Formats: sequence, C-alpha cells, structure tokens
Amino acid sequence: MKNSLPQDAKLVFKGELFEVWQWKQKMYDGSIEIFERVKQVDNVDVIAVVNDKIILEVQEQPDRAEPFISLPGGRCEEKEEPLVTAKRELLEETGYSSDHWELLMEHQPFNKMIWTIYNFIARDCSYEKIPRLDRGEKITVKLVSFDEFIAASQEPTFRNKYLGTYLSRASFDEAFRKKLYKTIFG
Amino acid sequence: MKNSLPQDAKLVFKGELFEVWQWKQKMYDGSIEIFERVKQVDNVDVIAVVNDKIILEVQEQPDRAEPFISLPGGRCEEKEEPLVTAKRELLEETGYSSDHWELLMEHQPFNKMIWTIYNFIARDCSYEKIPRLDRGEKITVKLVSFDEFIAASQEPTFRNKYLGTYLSRASFDEAFRKKLYKTIFG
Repeated sequence: MKNSLPQDAKLVFKGELFEVWQWKQKMYDGSIEIFERVKQVDNVDVIAVVNDKIILEVQEQPDRAEPFISLPGGRCEEKEEPLVTAKRELLEETGYSSDHWELLMEHQPFNKMIWTIYNFIARDCSYEKIPRLDRGEKITVKLVSFDEFIAASQEPTFRNKYLGTYLSRASFDEAFRKKLYKTIFG
Repeated sequence: MKNSLPQDAKLVFKGELFEVWQWKQKMYDGSIEIFERVKQVDNVDVIAVVNDKIILEVQEQPDRAEPFISLPGGRCEEKEEPLVTAKRELLEETGYSSDHWELLMEHQPFNKMIWTIYNFIARDCSYEKIPRLDRGEKITVKLVSFDEFIAASQEPTFRNKYLGTYLSRASFDEAFRKKLYKTIFG
C-alpha cells in the first residue's frame, strides 16, 4: 500500500525541499476536515561493489557538527528515474561507475510523507574519474569489507537508518548474513 | 545527535500538521544556500500490558482504503509532555489506564524532520471507562499474547514501522526475545 495523494489534493506550499499538500476529507460522522501530507522528491542509495569491497562515504555537511557514515546516493532531480539518479550520484560522489545494477528494495519510511527511498546494488564498479562534489558536500570515499560494512551500518552515525535496521539481522542471523552476501556480491 | 533547528531558523509555513522552517546556511565555498526542515508535534506509542496480554488496535482512517494494526498512541498537543499524551491517548482509544509507566525508547526516524516518537510501556493496565474516539477514528481493541504481538509487528499493515524493525530481531534471536519479554512484562 504505497502512500499517495488523493486526486483533489492541492499544493498549498512549495519550499526548497518540501511541498505541502492538503485536501478536504470526509470524516466518519459526515463532517469535513483538512488533511495534509508532505511531499519531497525521491531518494536513492547505492550499495556499490568494487571487487570484494563495498563503497562507504564519510561525509560532513555544513549544518551538521559531526561527520556521518553513509552510502553513495542523493535526491532524484525533477522527473529523473531512480536508476538514472543512482548512476549519476555514484559517479559524482565517488568517481565509480557500473554496468550491473539491481534494485534491492524500495522503502517508504513515513506514513504522512509522499517519499520513496530506492536502494540499488551496483556490481563490478570501476573507477572512471575524479568525483565532482556539490558545494554543500565534503565526502571521503572508503572501500570496506562485507564485515566492516555490516558493522558500520550499526553505528549511530550511519545515515541510512532504514537500511541499518534491515541489516541488523545480519549481525546475529548467520543464514540471513550468507544470503545477503550473495545478494550483494552476486 | 538529535535533529534540531539552528537559532536563526524562520517559520515559513504553518499548516494543519506540519511547519516548514528555513535558514541561510553558509556552504564550504563561502556561498549561502537556503536550508529547510519540516517540523511536527511529537508522537507517542504505548505497549500496554493487561495481565499477560498486550493491547493492539485494528484501525480504519477515512483516507485509507484498508484497515491497519497499530499500538495505542497519537500526537502530543501543544506543550504537552509525552507521558501525559501517552496516558491520555491510551485512555481515549482503549479505555484502559495504568500507574506503571516506563519509556522504552525515543526515536527520530527522519533526518530532515524535527520529530520524535516516544515509545512507552504501560504495565498492569486496568479498564477504566468506554473509549472516546475522534471523528476520524474507527478503532477495535484486541488483547493479544506476546507471541501474537511479535507476529503482528511483522505484518506489512503494522503501522509503527520503526518498532516493527526493532522487534524483528525477536523473531530469530531467542536471547533478545526473552529480554524483550522481561522488559515489557517486568
């Protein structure tokens, strides 16, 4: 059941990142209330494989006091297909590219927000060119082992929270861990 | 590291549920960009214990096609302490009350939203009075066993997603399951 807006919903605010939409909702007693949802462009995250390693980023952002760990990824531009975003962000942030892409999962973390995160796996990545960072990004690229990747995903500063909870099972369920390894490395 | 707004953030939109805040953020190259966050009042969820059972709700809402399963809970009113909200919502939605409250966890699910969910445990609940539902609520109260509670939390229609991922571990880690049982039932 994917979150969506009813047809008669109206845009009441458009900001830098977020839109706010409202509609008139009939309640169970027949009365009308204004219902409201927030919407933002979708996001992609990439589990990028280089030989037997996975790419992690240590990132600083200008409004955050502490650095955090994350996967390559970012926001879909207007009308941009998630896979196109994934390829673009991986190349811009890390300099790597891949010809072997697979969607691991899509996730809507928040009931009252129209927003999907797409998690892709990029296998057999090769280094293409020097990363091109936004003026709001300071990113250090690290190549880590599968074990280090699972451990990092359980750190409090790991940014991709939905993925951290998904991966937590790999810390104490050996069958899940083996299956996940195969899913990622092929 | 709790999400918060910088001191110079300004309210640019106030809707029915959401506020949008913006501030001028200095970037790494010295330029300025408008940063934006969404804010909403905090939420509480309650794991309410009645003898050896836990309270679950099967709920319909006027804008949702299908019923969903959830814990008792709701939104904090302006300036309302989370524990006060928890007691109020439990009584309104289920008719039960408790004198033995404990905070299990607090959770900020979303980096770009100023929003905290407080999860409380209410032990030794007793039936007080007939529930008083909002005109946007149709709620059926069920008392389920610990095993049924864990199973329900893994259903796709279980509403409290952050809790579902937290509880998933109980499905395949016996030590965690036993500890959780003790935490809930005391």
